[in-house]
Amino acid sequence: MENVYIGVDLGGTNLRVGLVDESGRILQVKQIPTEASLGYESIITRMVDLIKEVKKAYSAVSIGIGSPGPLNPFDGVVVSPPNLPGWQDVPITEMVEEAIGIPTYLVNDADAAALGEALYGGGKGRESSFYITVSTGIGGGYVQNNRLIQGEHGYSAEVGNMIIKPGGQKHANMNAGSLEALASGTSIAREGKARLEISGGAEEVFELAEKGNEEAVVIIDEAMDALAIGIANIVHSIDPSVIILGGGVMQAKDMILPLLKEKVDSYVYEGLRGKIEIEPVHLHDKAGIIGAAMHGRQNFENEKLKDN
Amino acid sequence: MENVYIGVDLGGTNLRVGLVDESGRILQVKQIPTEASLGYESIITRMVDLIKEVKKAYSAVSIGIGSPGPLNPFDGVVVSPPNLPGWQDVPITEMVEEAIGIPTYLVNDADAAALGEALYGGGKGRESSFYITVSTGIGGGYVQNNRLIQGEHGYSAEVGNMIIKPGGQKHANMNAGSLEALASGTSIAREGKARLEISGGAEEVFELAEKGNEEAVVIIDEAMDALAIGIANIVHSIDPSVIILGGGVMQAKDMILPLLKEKVDSYVYEGLRGKIEIEPVHLHDKAGIIGAAMHGRQNFENEKLKDN
Repeated sequence: MENVYIGVDLGGTNLRVGLVDESGRILQVKQIPTEASLGYESIITRMVDLIKEVKKAYSAVSIGIGSPGPLNPFDGVVVSPPNLPGWQDVPITEMVEEAIGIPTYLVNDADAAALGEALYGGGKGRESSFYITVSTGIGGGYVQNNRLIQGEHGYSAEVGNMIIKPGGQKHANMNAGSLEALASGTSIAREGKARLEISGGAEEVFELAEKGNEEAVVIIDEAMDALAIGIANIVHSIDPSVIILGGGVMQAKDMILPLLKEKVDSYVYEGLRGKIEIEPVHLHDKAGIIGAAMHGRQNFENEKLKDN
Repeated sequence: MENVYIGVDLGGTNLRVGLVDESGRILQVKQIPTEASLGYESIITRMVDLIKEVKKAYSAVSIGIGSPGPLNPFDGVVVSPPNLPGWQDVPITEMVEEAIGIPTYLVNDADAAALGEALYGGGKGRESSFYITVSTGIGGGYVQNNRLIQGEHGYSAEVGNMIIKPGGQKHANMNAGSLEALASGTSIAREGKARLEISGGAEEVFELAEKGNEEAVVIIDEAMDALAIGIANIVHSIDPSVIILGGGVMQAKDMILPLLKEKVDSYVYEGLRGKIEIEPVHLHDKAGIIGAAMHGRQNFENEKLKDN
């Protein structure tokens, strides 16, 4: 029988558990509301129940849990995600592994999506891919030769904190003038409120821009300029085979992608112009489950190799 | 008998050929002036003679040539380096391989130094290292799991063109406000000339700063601030195990390194503060020969693996 792997996508709103086969197909998936306010013990209890339910008829090899950060993927500890109130250094892999009895691994949610997209989505068959998700915040994941590069301290692809405009717009706990301060959904909404006097958030700015509102067009252009600088800086650091873009802002991808490609071309060496591939995500909300499952699988297989 | 590998360090001023053993030791090295004005045929002829001389008593496995870019490492073609006049799409690996009869590979000179430092210098034993050389220009090399990550188009670690200050100082064929425009030896010299009315270049600015000249201190501080932003952006992209710094500007490393570490700490996530390792180069001018030789070795062994 083919091996199967559990992938968990723990979000601030929904908790989803899927069963994934060796070729990255989701065989089944269950979803419940996270009900984050109930705290971590309730969430993990319900997560364990969901895992048991999904794996009932199968003997799964490993579990991979994708969770919001900050977290320590190496120790399996969720540190203190802003959208999971009350979580503080929760040893989630230990708790789940004890309850289920199969090897469990933890991964940053953006890293999970990055790995899913790299293996079976926009980065399939490519040597490397750099995934960037632009929503309320900006995160990402970097995959080289089908493996996540998590970095020495687990901080790779934390591109939201890249400095784009030194001394620019302030933003929460991040650098002034950071990518997240300038190009996130939050920042587009902030500019919309200030300059268009609207309260519908980034979505309304995009709608107005589509209808030809000049100031809305300028707001989008400025945000995409910051994102293009961030992408050009990533290109001049690692020159990935493909940049994969996801997140809520990509609902406006028909407007954004051509603009972004043009801007990136203007910021890279001449020899790279026209050659930088920027792809929208292929797997959408499936990437997190598939990537978490495959991260668990890869880690399990690595440990087995080391044991032999 | 132990295997040996040829490493060539082709510079605008000197041409050096070394014989490197399996543990990265240089067994012998020969150096002649490049005499770049004589053109590529003369240089390659003399390079071939030097290789023959160095390998006389040995049966070397492979040749690795480190050359200034732009070049295509995959095709083995040197495109048009500014400091090698008259070179235009020179198929150097083909020419050398034909003359010597052993497999020959081409690598960017900064990449060669990066690999040398990663294997036997400041990055030894580490999972990844990012090498940055700050001299007249700014270049670098990125090594992950003891292998160069050259990038999809061979443009990885071209960090001189990273944008630090959008719309800032213009610089040759690079982005306005690029790292090279703000933090290279050339840029420090430019500011020294403009603000201190000196003509002694970056070296004189460092000398004056050491003697307490306030404007010189400010010039160095601004350059290091740009470099710190560049390093923080690299950290938030790939979180390498160690950053290795080389190049002429590092002659002032006692002044630079503490300043740089303090600035980098102020630009990274709180969880990373005090943890970013920035190391001076260990191998100095040996890194290029050792790295070129080891790049040749790795490529040769890879091809052999594929053939079997």
